Amino acid sequence: MTKILKNYTRDSWFEASANLQDILSAVDSSIVAQTGTEGLDFAGMLEHARKIGGTNLRQMTFHERARMIKGLALAIMERKEELYEISASTGATRQDSWIDIEGGAGTLFVTSSKARRELPDAHILPDGDYEPIGKSGTFIGQHVYTSLHGAAVHINAFNFPVWGMLEKLGPTLVAGVPAIVKPATQGAQLTEACFRIMLESGLLPEGALQLIVGSVGDLLDHLTCQDVVSFTGSAATAAKLKNHPVISRESVRFVAEQDSLNASVLGPDATKDSPEFDLFVKEVVREMTTKAGQKCTAIRRTFVPAALMDDVEEAIKARLQKIVVGDPAQEGVRMGALASLKQLEDVRDKARQIASEAKLVFGDPNKVEALGVEQGIGAFISPLLFRADNPWEAKVVHDVEAFGPVSTLMPYRDCADAIALANRGQGSLVMSVFTHDPDIARQFVEGAGPYHGRIVFIDRDSAGESTGHGSPLPMLIHGGPGRAGGGEEMGGVRGVKHYMQRSALQGSPRTLSGAIGKWLPGAPQPTGEMHPFRLNFEELEIGYTLTTASRTITLEDIEHFASFTGDEFYAHMDEEAAAANPFFPGRVAHGYLILSFAAGLFVDAAPGPVLANYGLDNLRFLKPVTPGTPISVALTVKSKKIRNPGEYGEVVWAVTVTDDEGEVAATYDLLTMNAVTDAI
Amino acid sequence: MTKILKNYTRDSWFEASANLQDILSAVDSSIVAQTGTEGLDFAGMLEHARKIGGTNLRQMTFHERARMIKGLALAIMERKEELYEISASTGATRQDSWIDIEGGAGTLFVTSSKARRELPDAHILPDGDYEPIGKSGTFIGQHVYTSLHGAAVHINAFNFPVWGMLEKLGPTLVAGVPAIVKPATQGAQLTEACFRIMLESGLLPEGALQLIVGSVGDLLDHLTCQDVVSFTGSAATAAKLKNHPVISRESVRFVAEQDSLNASVLGPDATKDSPEFDLFVKEVVREMTTKAGQKCTAIRRTFVPAALMDDVEEAIKARLQKIVVGDPAQEGVRMGALASLKQLEDVRDKARQIASEAKLVFGDPNKVEALGVEQGIGAFISPLLFRADNPWEAKVVHDVEAFGPVSTLMPYRDCADAIALANRGQGSLVMSVFTHDPDIARQFVEGAGPYHGRIVFIDRDSAGESTGHGSPLPMLIHGGPGRAGGGEEMGGVRGVKHYMQRSALQGSPRTLSGAIGKWLPGAPQPTGEMHPFRLNFEELEIGYTLTTASRTITLEDIEHFASFTGDEFYAHMDEEAAAANPFFPGRVAHGYLILSFAAGLFVDAAPGPVLANYGLDNLRFLKPVTPGTPISVALTVKSKKIRNPGEYGEVVWAVTVTDDEGEVAATYDLLTMNAVTDAI
Repeated sequence: MTKILKNYTRDSWFEASANLQDILSAVDSSIVAQTGTEGLDFAGMLEHARKIGGTNLRQMTFHERARMIKGLALAIMERKEELYEISASTGATRQDSWIDIEGGAGTLFVTSSKARRELPDAHILPDGDYEPIGKSGTFIGQHVYTSLHGAAVHINAFNFPVWGMLEKLGPTLVAGVPAIVKPATQGAQLTEACFRIMLESGLLPEGALQLIVGSVGDLLDHLTCQDVVSFTGSAATAAKLKNHPVISRESVRFVAEQDSLNASVLGPDATKDSPEFDLFVKEVVREMTTKAGQKCTAIRRTFVPAALMDDVEEAIKARLQKIVVGDPAQEGVRMGALASLKQLEDVRDKARQIASEAKLVFGDPNKVEALGVEQGIGAFISPLLFRADNPWEAKVVHDVEAFGPVSTLMPYRDCADAIALANRGQGSLVMSVFTHDPDIARQFVEGAGPYHGRIVFIDRDSAGESTGHGSPLPMLIHGGPGRAGGGEEMGGVRGVKHYMQRSALQGSPRTLSGAIGKWLPGAPQPTGEMHPFRLNFEELEIGYTLTTASRTITLEDIEHFASFTGDEFYAHMDEEAAAANPFFPGRVAHGYLILSFAAGLFVDAAPGPVLANYGLDNLRFLKPVTPGTPISVALTVKSKKIRNPGEYGEVVWAVTVTDDEGEVAATYDLLTMNAVTDAI
Repeated sequence: MTKILKNYTRDSWFEASANLQDILSAVDSSIVAQTGTEGLDFAGMLEHARKIGGTNLRQMTFHERARMIKGLALAIMERKEELYEISASTGATRQDSWIDIEGGAGTLFVTSSKARRELPDAHILPDGDYEPIGKSGTFIGQHVYTSLHGAAVHINAFNFPVWGMLEKLGPTLVAGVPAIVKPATQGAQLTEACFRIMLESGLLPEGALQLIVGSVGDLLDHLTCQDVVSFTGSAATAAKLKNHPVISRESVRFVAEQDSLNASVLGPDATKDSPEFDLFVKEVVREMTTKAGQKCTAIRRTFVPAALMDDVEEAIKARLQKIVVGDPAQEGVRMGALASLKQLEDVRDKARQIASEAKLVFGDPNKVEALGVEQGIGAFISPLLFRADNPWEAKVVHDVEAFGPVSTLMPYRDCADAIALANRGQGSLVMSVFTHDPDIARQFVEGAGPYHGRIVFIDRDSAGESTGHGSPLPMLIHGGPGRAGGGEEMGGVRGVKHYMQRSALQGSPRTLSGAIGKWLPGAPQPTGEMHPFRLNFEELEIGYTLTTASRTITLEDIEHFASFTGDEFYAHMDEEAAAANPFFPGRVAHGYLILSFAAGLFVDAAPGPVLANYGLDNLRFLKPVTPGTPISVALTVKSKKIRNPGEYGEVVWAVTVTDDEGEVAATYDLLTMNAVTDAI
């Protein structure tokens, strides 16, 4: 009996009541599974996500949610072989599946670790520093991000059934927003299997995840301003969705990542013998054949210095010769099938269009020898290399994407010409430049930056570690302007913010400190009996302050410090020269002497919860300290974040060093590691 | 003869060839001017902006462009009285005009100064820190923003003819993007006058600014992915523009700031006698009457604890009694006219709708005594206060905005109820909460944050300096989700980024350093004969490095430093206790001792171009330094930025302190002020 893929709605599995659709194997066209969504209550799914999923997720902190997605990644890695097995039916080689499955889990790992490093262990994310507004500091501003109260609707493409789901899920869940995942039907058997593994991990709170395998029915009619639609797929579908009356009326956030005519350029500094020439040829062939060219980041347009056209063509053809196409299960196969017969027809059609203005110099769209497969069975196609010698006359190559192992080789005159040609794609996800000249790189960034979401420079220095033209990485943004959809995903915490709302807060420092859980200048600084170094991590209240006795910095101190450290800078040692300096009234204390004496004033020496001073941020010397000036210190708990649960956390202290006129000599943020109770 | 407002296209003034439209005075309905755009070449304007304006602006750095907009603001302030005079014909009081004219110039001043402080003096803006990718550091990532190559089309509302133009222009020009300004026809006489002042300042390069006074014709048909449309106005118009086929097909960036049913809440902690009660009443009345309530940020919905409904109603009515409506030119007038008779009709219509579910408790939509104006002349209306005692049954008050001096008073039960009611506006530009309790503020941020672009908390502490509910500020974002349009403007550098493209760069540190003009870890560190402290600001090359001799930190040094500074923390003084600490192998050197010795190693003492060490950032102690360990320092020029042209600039130095095993003990960014040649 054929397997029927179920939907996951309101925390239970749901099988369509009618109108099932077949999913075929890309390799042998057999029926792999059936699926449908007839009978699903789409409005109810959205409500469930918002009411149950969102409420549950928002009760967790950023760190708790980040640890949760790390757990999901571990669960997937533990059962990855189940996924590899299913993946073969999508036409993917083991290497293609590795990108999809382990690459997918990788985005969760990286997003989790960046979230824990860069986000507070809290519910609200401050954005930037506070903004002074009133002159005496009683009214200030602070931007924050808060979790949207809606649902994220993820509409994914067919080419990476696992990665495509996970790269969107990581940032969404860290943001505290529940998701409704809708994979492309082709390949959904793999998405469903991975979804099931995540559910079975038991890590997800109720309502956090739902799955739609098939049509989304009237789902979009029920969206509100708190929902986000994140779409990957064709420009045509994106345009249709974007103009949906509800999306437009409610200003629903719509993130699109769509077709793009990515370019790769062999730099003008390259010669036939330069390492960049070989790296370029290898990369073009790799991008044409990985996942049978079905990557939104694949190289569709290949630009080379006019004089090198023939050499590059020969070199690419020589490598393409060696690519064995066939059943991914067969030993030695380097390129598998397209995802479906429908895709095969589409790629052939686009190739015909490209052929109207470019010469086919490798491959035949209608003929391929596929290893281990009967002639005419499956969605196999040969790599196709085109050559267009007049790229400014060509139109189709800059406008039509054949979503398969297809690329077009074109010449350019000089750097500006190459940039203009690359930009003719009218917005792309990625371009790459093979150059060893940083100044050429600069020209490409300035000239092509606004047209491309990612620009990769590859040269002899970076080749060994380069992740290549076609790999979006979780720490970098993925998306691009114009034709590429104008959207942006991932990029570490940047991607998390797409599921949060930025608001400007205004109020007194006391109110805003209390609202965001972080001490802000002007907020109360209560003192107490206990030296703060004697309080455990969780006992330290935000704002708790130690004010020290004062200590006079003498000329002898300055001279002693200079001879002890060797820092005999004239501003400390030579009255006349110091007075000639525009910043100093005469000899002044070393900045590091001020820091050192400040520590001497506030440090409590005996063993206790403070384990280490691990750093310092935002130090500014605001007023020179002249010999004979007494200084004193205020040390205030600014923010806290658990680092190793059950052991210790980071404490940020706002430090202010004041002189005897009450003026601030220096401010900085001191960073310490503090033990929790019973840790030591 | 009636004045005809001209368009400014391709660097010259252009008068419409036909189809002129009248602009009427809001005060006496006389014809103030005529305008039209018949015959304008809209496609040519876009091309001119892109080819000439963009190219010119992109040749300037962020700082040069920031200084330019400061100059524009100064030019406006110098000739502000010309603008006040014209402003009176729009129905504005002197106070209303102050917000528009001097508030408008203020956004340019603030945007300029924030840009110079927060942006590099360069063409490319790095976004965040570099991202390590390859394990050995030969392949890294770096996000950057580059200026869009298109034009910004600013479509502005009628209520603030000057501010509305300038708040968008500041960030656009700093971003290096040329603008085409299209004011609302009503009030365009004022926009045109201000535009003319800016042109006559002579500060703008060719192509940077163009003006359309009237219909935009087929302009939108010619947009590309490099253009931005920034719209302020009604939701209906926004929806029409958003769905324009070219905007949608090319993923043209569309920023909308539209109608919004802003709420103000008297906190649950307020009593009739609390200062917050009075502050709230004053603010509601101020927001109803300033600019005759024609502010997209005005308070439309007023929520008070149920028990205080009657008291609040009485107090608001008592203050509204005192508002003198009339010709702004008359002494004592507190509220002027609506912008036009059309607006008057619209406000009356909306008031009728609100009256279907709320009781009118102050004012009469059809009757007003306007000082100094004949009965029935001009667009005058009385303030209108409604009261709806069942806010959950009411629909119109949460859905229909009367764009005039109109507000509705409603009760709430508790904090959660107030938050839910405020959120019923489905997205707003601003809400305010009058509370003295930081925990209530926290609940509002978490519960209402995702629905409101700005949340203002006002209490007794902040009232003296508060800028109030209705004032967008240039350092804070302005915009909101959902009904408010989903857009965002201003917010300092945040607003500048809306006119730039973020891209992820990947490559070797050498390539990326060269491309962005900033030293990145792993990039070359050339050394030279000259100590870098002997080189003037402009002679310091990015990457230039000093490597020092080494110095051993002895146990005596540590003990001496402890007794000298008073910092006798046990990790430095007690072998056994230090070894029990999870971070230390035993006694270690003070962090500040390492910093001080490092300075002793790299400082060149004699007077020279280095004027001062003014701060330090990102200090991290990575490996403890035990007694007997030799340390040495590498000091590398990381980035530079002129601070006072002709005098000095800031230099950021990457400092690495290494031990004898070549491992890094500490890294930090050292900040110095360095003189330019011939400055001293």
